[in-house]
Amino acid sequence: MTAESPEPNVVSWNAGRIRLLDQSRLPAEEAYLEIDDCRVLAKAIREMRIRGAPALGVAAAYGLALAASRSSAVDPAGLLAQMEETAEMLRSTRPTAVNLAWALERVLGAARESAGATAMAEVALSEARRIHQEEIEAGRAIGRLGAELVPAGATVLTHCNTGALATAGYGTAVGVIRTAHEQGKRIRVLVDETRPLLQGARLTAWELQRLGIPFTVIVDGAAGEMMRRGRVDCVVVGADRIAANGDVANKVGTYSLAVLAKENRLPFYVAAPTSTIDLSTATGDEIPIEERPADEVTAFAGTRTTPDGAAAANPAFDVTPARYVGAVITERGIARPPYDESLARLLGTGARAVKTGASKW
Amino acid sequence: MTAESPEPNVVSWNAGRIRLLDQSRLPAEEAYLEIDDCRVLAKAIREMRIRGAPALGVAAAYGLALAASRSSAVDPAGLLAQMEETAEMLRSTRPTAVNLAWALERVLGAARESAGATAMAEVALSEARRIHQEEIEAGRAIGRLGAELVPAGATVLTHCNTGALATAGYGTAVGVIRTAHEQGKRIRVLVDETRPLLQGARLTAWELQRLGIPFTVIVDGAAGEMMRRGRVDCVVVGADRIAANGDVANKVGTYSLAVLAKENRLPFYVAAPTSTIDLSTATGDEIPIEERPADEVTAFAGTRTTPDGAAAANPAFDVTPARYVGAVITERGIARPPYDESLARLLGTGARAVKTGASKW
Repeated sequence: MTAESPEPNVVSWNAGRIRLLDQSRLPAEEAYLEIDDCRVLAKAIREMRIRGAPALGVAAAYGLALAASRSSAVDPAGLLAQMEETAEMLRSTRPTAVNLAWALERVLGAARESAGATAMAEVALSEARRIHQEEIEAGRAIGRLGAELVPAGATVLTHCNTGALATAGYGTAVGVIRTAHEQGKRIRVLVDETRPLLQGARLTAWELQRLGIPFTVIVDGAAGEMMRRGRVDCVVVGADRIAANGDVANKVGTYSLAVLAKENRLPFYVAAPTSTIDLSTATGDEIPIEERPADEVTAFAGTRTTPDGAAAANPAFDVTPARYVGAVITERGIARPPYDESLARLLGTGARAVKTGASKW
Repeated sequence: MTAESPEPNVVSWNAGRIRLLDQSRLPAEEAYLEIDDCRVLAKAIREMRIRGAPALGVAAAYGLALAASRSSAVDPAGLLAQMEETAEMLRSTRPTAVNLAWALERVLGAARESAGATAMAEVALSEARRIHQEEIEAGRAIGRLGAELVPAGATVLTHCNTGALATAGYGTAVGVIRTAHEQGKRIRVLVDETRPLLQGARLTAWELQRLGIPFTVIVDGAAGEMMRRGRVDCVVVGADRIAANGDVANKVGTYSLAVLAKENRLPFYVAAPTSTIDLSTATGDEIPIEERPADEVTAFAGTRTTPDGAAAANPAFDVTPARYVGAVITERGIARPPYDESLARLLGTGARAVKTGASKW
């Protein structure tokens, strides 16, 4: 972050290459990757050097622009075929966050409508930049709308990372916290460390510290006790995919928070851009939940935590049924139950159909 | 573990010294400490080289025997004063687990009734050995009684470590699992890794592997999702202190499991020896909850996980209100709600009053 720009440069188009902040090395080190090959981008995504549903969408969009600009294809059909192949590779990196498939489909759609291979590459980059800009603006709008739900003096519990790093923009749940803070509401934040990859401890703490918002990190298992002791006023989290009925896939541990919030009569809010809402997924049961490598659980910072040969399960996400969700805060407005109606209504304006099963409106 | 003894040698009296398995180094290394100074023992307890409520009671009892045997006091009054001073030091190491105060009071009580300084040291050691033997037998009885609550083929979710390591004996919650396994019930175990100190990943996994019981380690945040997916049949945990009304203090994260179990209509059981029940503590609100150093949360295996200057809260325990507890499995029987009646009834036989606020019957 510089004085000119308060945001970290999460992902950007930089002289024909993609510049990526390596989030796996934060907070110890602020290192950047310069990527000129989509296979390298796919690997970086799988290794979670960039993560967060909206940021993944932006990165994937730039990835298609990269593929188009580097292509040796001379005719539009050949270029489109190469882009579709690249899109398929990028789409398969992380199955749960729908923003990835959504952004790829948007760039492909724009490319299909363009004339000529050169124009196609330019159109792809323009569309990627448009997606990026829209996510930044969506975050600001989510912050503005969501902040109204956060009372002055509140302690907000959040999970994983949903700030600039996760969105390549302003943030979703952290964006709500940030706007409330900027409004002078004296917000405090309880940050779940978010095992296994500690996005809360590593990334959300890093962002809140830079924003000057007071926070305390806790282990995930302490969140319930903090609610029970009356130390939490509301829970705000992000989302990786929201089904048509309002079921929410988000970082594993979110469902537990939702149940604990209900039990302690605390509001539980989900903040996400409409690019995260997938009306083609009817319910949470249909959302594919990524199972990540067991060694994220059985080792830590190179140190083995379990005995050799111990088995581990590592679902990266969980599904919070819509009945626990008090509101879904989007850039177009706040959806309330029943979500099948309110989400469809939010997406109704400007909706356009896309082809793939993984796509939306 | 040897072929002769299936149990690790957690704590023992060894030629006038205390031999302690350093649990902070498991599973990487099976290292032992030889302790001939109670200040070193107190430090080892604070550093959680030995932990688990029943094991702490046994270690503290041996600690008083050590103090008595090493004392230079020539008269009984002088020795008793020294022992009381040592007891106070050991009692203050970990405030939540009541077994510590209970065991110290038992050894002091026995010493007070003995004649002469030499006899007092012998009596202290005998009482410590008796406490140790009783905890081993209590674990076996808890296993036998508790196994009846575990259906054949069940997947049992457990938290922290409650096996031989935690009890210097057979185990409480792990004892229940172990007995059910030995009965041929084809039990599977889901092991919460249990941040911050990973007693589940490090210790419970180590024990279950040696016992040949199939298990899978998960991050604490995944427990809810496993319940929601129908992958859990019951939850069994240990306890550090059970109040007269049935409220249970146990490793942080336990309360979350209890709420999630209720929400998913799964039985939630607490397994603990009667030495963990404290009728002098009316409710969970009165149980002191130890706040441990923040760096257990902000660093891991020497690697800092949060940015410099990040604040962390680290309550080591939480309180699960009695209404979530389906049964308390003790060596004297299974207590069911209402606990104020059932726990008092269990402790009624052979009850004797002791003096300190922290002690029990």
